[in-house]
Amino acid sequence: MRRALRLAASGPWPDPNPRVGCVVVAAGGTVVGEGFHDGAGTPHAEVGALRAAGAAARGATAYVTLEPCSHTGRTGPCTDLLVAAGVARVVFAQSDPNPDAAGGAERLQAAGVQVSAGVLADEAAALNARWARTVVLGRPLVTWKLATTLDGRSAAADGTSQWITGEEARADVHELRATRDAVLVGTGTALTDDPRLTVRMPDGRVAPHQPLRVVMGLRDLLEGARVHDGPGTVVRLVTRDPREALDSLWHKGVRDVWLEGGPTLAAAFLRAGLVDDVYAYVAPALLGAGRATVVDLGIHTIADALRLRLVDVAVVGGDVRIHAVPARDDATTDLHLPERP
Amino acid sequence: MRRALRLAASGPWPDPNPRVGCVVVAAGGTVVGEGFHDGAGTPHAEVGALRAAGAAARGATAYVTLEPCSHTGRTGPCTDLLVAAGVARVVFAQSDPNPDAAGGAERLQAAGVQVSAGVLADEAAALNARWARTVVLGRPLVTWKLATTLDGRSAAADGTSQWITGEEARADVHELRATRDAVLVGTGTALTDDPRLTVRMPDGRVAPHQPLRVVMGLRDLLEGARVHDGPGTVVRLVTRDPREALDSLWHKGVRDVWLEGGPTLAAAFLRAGLVDDVYAYVAPALLGAGRATVVDLGIHTIADALRLRLVDVAVVGGDVRIHAVPARDDATTDLHLPERP
Ligand SMILES: NC(=O)c1ccc[n+]([C@@H]2O[C@H](COP(=O)([O-])OP(=O)(O)OC[C@H]3O[C@@H](n4cnc5c(N)ncnc54)[C@H](OP(=O)(O)O)[C@@H]3O)[C@@H](O)[C@H]2O)c1
Ligand SMILES: NC(=O)c1ccc[n+]([C@@H]2O[C@H](COP(=O)([O-])OP(=O)(O)OC[C@H]3O[C@@H](n4cnc5c(N)ncnc54)[C@H](OP(=O)(O)O)[C@@H]3O)[C@@H](O)[C@H]2O)c1
Repeated sequence: MRRALRLAASGPWPDPNPRVGCVVVAAGGTVVGEGFHDGAGTPHAEVGALRAAGAAARGATAYVTLEPCSHTGRTGPCTDLLVAAGVARVVFAQSDPNPDAAGGAERLQAAGVQVSAGVLADEAAALNARWARTVVLGRPLVTWKLATTLDGRSAAADGTSQWITGEEARADVHELRATRDAVLVGTGTALTDDPRLTVRMPDGRVAPHQPLRVVMGLRDLLEGARVHDGPGTVVRLVTRDPREALDSLWHKGVRDVWLEGGPTLAAAFLRAGLVDDVYAYVAPALLGAGRATVVDLGIHTIADALRLRLVDVAVVGGDVRIHAVPARDDATTDLHLPERP
Repeated sequence: MRRALRLAASGPWPDPNPRVGCVVVAAGGTVVGEGFHDGAGTPHAEVGALRAAGAAARGATAYVTLEPCSHTGRTGPCTDLLVAAGVARVVFAQSDPNPDAAGGAERLQAAGVQVSAGVLADEAAALNARWARTVVLGRPLVTWKLATTLDGRSAAADGTSQWITGEEARADVHELRATRDAVLVGTGTALTDDPRLTVRMPDGRVAPHQPLRVVMGLRDLLEGARVHDGPGTVVRLVTRDPREALDSLWHKGVRDVWLEGGPTLAAAFLRAGLVDDVYAYVAPALLGAGRATVVDLGIHTIADALRLRLVDVAVVGGDVRIHAVPARDDATTDLHLPERP
């Protein structure tokens, strides 16, 4: 199973699909086939492993990091492949949290395959924590990023906000952006700052992987808005409904949204309970006046404050990065992305 | 000199006076006398060391961590004592930054004593960094403490602010308060929160050392205000002038002021350039509305932001403590209090 976990980890990340590894071991203990899932649209891990094993799969044990699927997706149910190959025993780590894909264990057992579940389940789950969460919620996860002074200002009195945080913090934002499927801002930010929303490398060049660039709100963007420059896709969501926006991104395969604000859009997502992660870049600076980081949340008294739980705190250049998750929901506890493999 | 430094460190701290140690070594290399300064109102380190050495001081070398004083304070100039004792040579670490006390080296040389300066000067200076800075500025150092949400609110829309931060952060504040000579708030905070301003221990009991409790502003306090409860002294400063307030505290022997706000008083000190340290306790919580942590600072545009430099960042319970100093002034760089000895 350790070998299967290592294989799983070699899959692409981030990706809308889970990372899965599979190792087929013959009765004598010889590894006869290996496979891993190489990203959305490619065969499941079991397919590659069984193909490699060929006839040697008969009577063998398949170790899989995720419960084999029983539904007919792009690649057909893996349970049927395992049965057809004559595999005698399937050992898997994590049960499938996807209601459309679950039931694999039952199906295997019904076909006379011996099944063991839960081996190194936690390690397997950690590989795909964010994926499992989106599957359960049926919507993309939302990370709100804010840049603020110590006194909670996101822009000075005259509207200037470039730059609140330092170069290292901005580079860090680009690195984290790159791990998400989409970057989202409101029309307010798009019209005021005219941002490009691309992921740029420290030398200023555009990075090879670009998340979708999404602008949400009713107003039209300006002709020649910079968001249209550069590679990749721009999505205009002509709505103010956060849930509707997430639905439409979900159907585009987006599983992880990086919400860059501004204060109005962030408040709308927070009020709707649709923020899963908060990255606050706090500059040790004071403005005393200017725009708040987030507008009215409908909170009147301190007891109703929207409480977050610290995940980690880091000094980035001369600024402080605070990563926190809403305290209301324990399930979000360990959803921060692991270090890039 | 190492021995003298160790002696110095055994002096009381915090204290309005510097910590000083002195070791007298006879010509043969034997230590014949030691002394350290035991706090304001007690004899200087040299006095104790010379007393212990007695006649053995004749022809000896005195190692002192701070340049011996040449002025007649509460204890008479140490230079004269050294000369009278017949000391042949004086080696000292830090030169005296106090313009009223300096000139000791010249005075010793004029009397025929051999003088070496600067031995382990940095280590000696580190022992008394805050003292040296107050002496140069001629005013107490001011530490502004604030408690804020991630979005820069110090109270909710209805004025409630208890508690923004958690228990551990509040205990940490009490620990730091205890290292200062005075705790200062404006009449606004005094009238709204009716704080006690005492240092309390984790079990709620009042700690043995209590800083002065100071309320500044023109309005009268309420009859029976809680600030009058408990041990120690309450000072009312009926002024709105931060410099006048610091002058009057200076003359009461205060060298370190812990400014607990509120937002109006903090802004006045910041605008006057009279804040030397900032401790921000940032709660990972959002309010979206409510009172700002600091009122208008006269800053209009981002380029004029009052920039601070991080000293350190710590997680305290579920909150983040950010310690920073104004970036304008490199001299304040290492003025944070060391860990309690
Ligand atoms: N410091 C930071 O981290 C940061 C990040 C981003 C932006 N900013 C600053 O924020 C400022 C822009 O603020 P903003 O509040 O106007 O930006 P915004 O939140 O990006 O955009 C607000 C606009 O989005 C539309 N919108 C979409 N969904 C909405 C909803 N559910 N509720 C309400 N409105 C919705 C509305 O415009 P329609 O009428 O078009 O629907 C609304 O006016 C800029 O100065 C920018 O620099 C700072
Ligand atoms: N989160 C935190 O860290 C924190 C800390 C402290 C307080 N607070 C909150 O802050 C609120 C009180 O705010 P506040 O601004 O009224 O409190 P404040 O700053 O303590 O007091 C302001 C008052 O101090 C007097 N004052 C003294 N020197 C002044 C000067 N140089 N300039 C202007 N006024 C001066 C003025 O009253 P006179 O007319 O009497 O002169 C002024 O109204 C409370 O709700 C409290 O809970 C929060």
